[in-house]
Amino acid sequence: MKKIFNLETKNLVGREVVLFGFVNSIRDHGKLFFFDLKDRSGIVQCVISQENNYFGSVKEIKNQSVVMVKGQVQQRPPHLANPHLPTGKVEVVINEIQILSQPKTLPFEVDSDGYEIDEALRLKYRYLDLRRARLQNNLRKRHEFLLFIRNFLDAHGFIEIETPILTKSTPEGARDYLVPSRIYPGKFYALPQSPQQYKQLLMVAGLERYFQIARCFRDEDPRGDRQPEFTQLDMEMSYVNRDDILSLVEKMFVEVINQLYPQKRIKTYPFPRLTYEEAISIYGSDKPDLRNDPNDPNELAFAFIVDFPMFEVVNDKLETMHHPFTQPRLPDGKSDRDALFNALEKSPESLLSEQYDLVLNGYEIGGGSIRTTDPEILIKVFEILGHERGEVEEKFGHLLEAFSYGVPPHGGIAPGIDRILMILNNEPNIREVIAFPKTGEGRDLMMNSPSEIEKKQLDELSIQIRQVEN
Amino acid sequence: MKKIFNLETKNLVGREVVLFGFVNSIRDHGKLFFFDLKDRSGIVQCVISQENNYFGSVKEIKNQSVVMVKGQVQQRPPHLANPHLPTGKVEVVINEIQILSQPKTLPFEVDSDGYEIDEALRLKYRYLDLRRARLQNNLRKRHEFLLFIRNFLDAHGFIEIETPILTKSTPEGARDYLVPSRIYPGKFYALPQSPQQYKQLLMVAGLERYFQIARCFRDEDPRGDRQPEFTQLDMEMSYVNRDDILSLVEKMFVEVINQLYPQKRIKTYPFPRLTYEEAISIYGSDKPDLRNDPNDPNELAFAFIVDFPMFEVVNDKLETMHHPFTQPRLPDGKSDRDALFNALEKSPESLLSEQYDLVLNGYEIGGGSIRTTDPEILIKVFEILGHERGEVEEKFGHLLEAFSYGVPPHGGIAPGIDRILMILNNEPNIREVIAFPKTGEGRDLMMNSPSEIEKKQLDELSIQIRQVEN
Repeated sequence: MKKIFNLETKNLVGREVVLFGFVNSIRDHGKLFFFDLKDRSGIVQCVISQENNYFGSVKEIKNQSVVMVKGQVQQRPPHLANPHLPTGKVEVVINEIQILSQPKTLPFEVDSDGYEIDEALRLKYRYLDLRRARLQNNLRKRHEFLLFIRNFLDAHGFIEIETPILTKSTPEGARDYLVPSRIYPGKFYALPQSPQQYKQLLMVAGLERYFQIARCFRDEDPRGDRQPEFTQLDMEMSYVNRDDILSLVEKMFVEVINQLYPQKRIKTYPFPRLTYEEAISIYGSDKPDLRNDPNDPNELAFAFIVDFPMFEVVNDKLETMHHPFTQPRLPDGKSDRDALFNALEKSPESLLSEQYDLVLNGYEIGGGSIRTTDPEILIKVFEILGHERGEVEEKFGHLLEAFSYGVPPHGGIAPGIDRILMILNNEPNIREVIAFPKTGEGRDLMMNSPSEIEKKQLDELSIQIRQVEN
Repeated sequence: MKKIFNLETKNLVGREVVLFGFVNSIRDHGKLFFFDLKDRSGIVQCVISQENNYFGSVKEIKNQSVVMVKGQVQQRPPHLANPHLPTGKVEVVINEIQILSQPKTLPFEVDSDGYEIDEALRLKYRYLDLRRARLQNNLRKRHEFLLFIRNFLDAHGFIEIETPILTKSTPEGARDYLVPSRIYPGKFYALPQSPQQYKQLLMVAGLERYFQIARCFRDEDPRGDRQPEFTQLDMEMSYVNRDDILSLVEKMFVEVINQLYPQKRIKTYPFPRLTYEEAISIYGSDKPDLRNDPNDPNELAFAFIVDFPMFEVVNDKLETMHHPFTQPRLPDGKSDRDALFNALEKSPESLLSEQYDLVLNGYEIGGGSIRTTDPEILIKVFEILGHERGEVEEKFGHLLEAFSYGVPPHGGIAPGIDRILMILNNEPNIREVIAFPKTGEGRDLMMNSPSEIEKKQLDELSIQIRQVEN
């Protein structure tokens, strides 16, 4: 007899089966004892009568006991069938049962959706929280979504390439997480905010079509629905223009949603393309919510926002709206290198850029751009951002030098996986679609991390804790 | 006219095409000018004659120039065909050519295999090194291998689940890489040596079949062919025995190798299973090379090694041969909890374990085990390893507590992807199958990492460099 999944019992009336799972919904009817057995495929009702030798031991089982059941699948009488359950027409008559693990009382119910439970408690006991059907479904959908995308991109000539997690601190963007080096005292690795430089270097290498389901890290201040580490679909292509990239992304999302979320309706296809100026002037936002009915959980309103300004003023300083690697563009659309340099010198705020964002239901779910491959323009952009030429060459010298060995024109995009799955699964925040999320303040309540470490570890790393002066 | 890949030209005689790529092998024959154009699909010969308007500008191209070519595909005369090239029967007669990027002289050849070039130089210019057909093929095979495995495991009911990279320092195993927390001064995250605890907690959550192509980190001393970060296929299953896991792994490797490496021959199938004692006594090694001819690049000799001792003596101290989560087993094979505790107390060296290793051509390419799910046995094992009960509860309390809420019996395995691909691609070390490897001493010569960081960054993290006393 071979172990089968609970769901398979529905087609196995009359057969002997072996099942494993967690006990749910115990109903003790005196001479008959019922419970639901739950495994990853679903639930099946099990029943044992007092004539059976195991009737005594079955009385010991509790909600969430882990058991092995040997028994026979039988049809339920029609009036006792459960139409809400795929296995609702059958039940398993127990011949033998073994209790594999006995639970103490759980800190909360796991049969509900769980929204009503204090989230800190849920995160502390995440391994129990994940017993919920809702969260298991979210994880399964996440798996299916990412696998679909991998196969889609493979079929479109992309290859997935793993880039390093231990990399180098660079001055652009947000704050880096740092990793002290033991072998080189006083030196540090940084965790990547994104694989931006690596993917551009892969284009220099001639790989042409790269993607990666990539882990990214940003040490930001606690703010809203963020995580210290998050997942993005990182992509880069050579010899393409903006529309090649946007069309591919559009096709990918339409196909994956049709396949995995058939109940969802994409409002407009092809996705509308709005300029930044149109978005701001019509909707007052560069991530407008274009749904007809924001209360409809099945409406998906995608849009691309294009023609962003290259720079914006933040705290009296110029910053790039996207990032420094984005190709700036003259407002008249002409591609004249001298005129571009002139504008970078004299009126950088007037420049547009080859940035594009993907927006869904009022969220920015991805951004990208055609890149600058001209080292002099890249240096100029960094200078406008306030970096010294020497610093740029020290921090980005390898990229600037790479571009001097022949560089295919290239561009890319990086949709954020957590946010997209949050929307597709109708969840209120990204923590619901991440297996082991941290709190908004970056704590892992289950592992109790970050945590203190041993002095020996600090010594090995040649660092010490700086005492804060009071 | 649409951009096509070079390889497609072989079936497009008479058609107008647009091609992009790097220039290779320039041959200037006076009135005729030839070069090979290389893109990710391969090479096609391009030719331009002096009558063409672009004949002047084509003289500017160099080896590794990036160009766009518009032209017409024509059949080569039979005696000029190149039988070694898929596109060897055709050539592209250039109508128009644009130079998109001009290279300065490369620091080394990229047409060769590259083994002869100083590796430090190759790693510094990895983005050029990766232009080699050999390395591009290694990356493509890596992509195909991992995608095949993902689809295989999906078809076998597994789901891929991403576990955190920012996690907690634990006392078992090798040295952790640490990440100082800015928000919690004096506290640290650790990078995972493997997702071991997370995958076991996913079994407690009832996910039953987990896998992940997982990044793992170990801060080890420079030793042989190691990397600070590496990739493993991390798997865990509930309600299975050793043979269920080994059979699945065996099937997976046979299928992926038949599909992607049809020239390889698997010497013995099913894979032989040797006990540790047999392996040591017959071959003098627990990772024996079972090939008939170690010089045959296409022979693959897999084996499983089973029945390992639970503990080994290292520097006069008991250590686990695998890891503390492995289920110990009485030498007589009986499963008697009291007898097991007794043996753990009195003669731990006598115990075997539920560990198994996968061996290929003399390399250990993966290890795993059936896990201890009894918290008291796990604590006992940690005590034998020299950890205080209090420390174990502080560091592993969440796992011990998790097991008290009902835990399915479970086990797993974690084949090392880098090593397997090294063997399958006939490479001498794992750096050849990793896109951006570090040196044996953990340096990234391209990014120049680890590197010094700004004092401001240290201050924000509340740490300082400890000055080494001379």
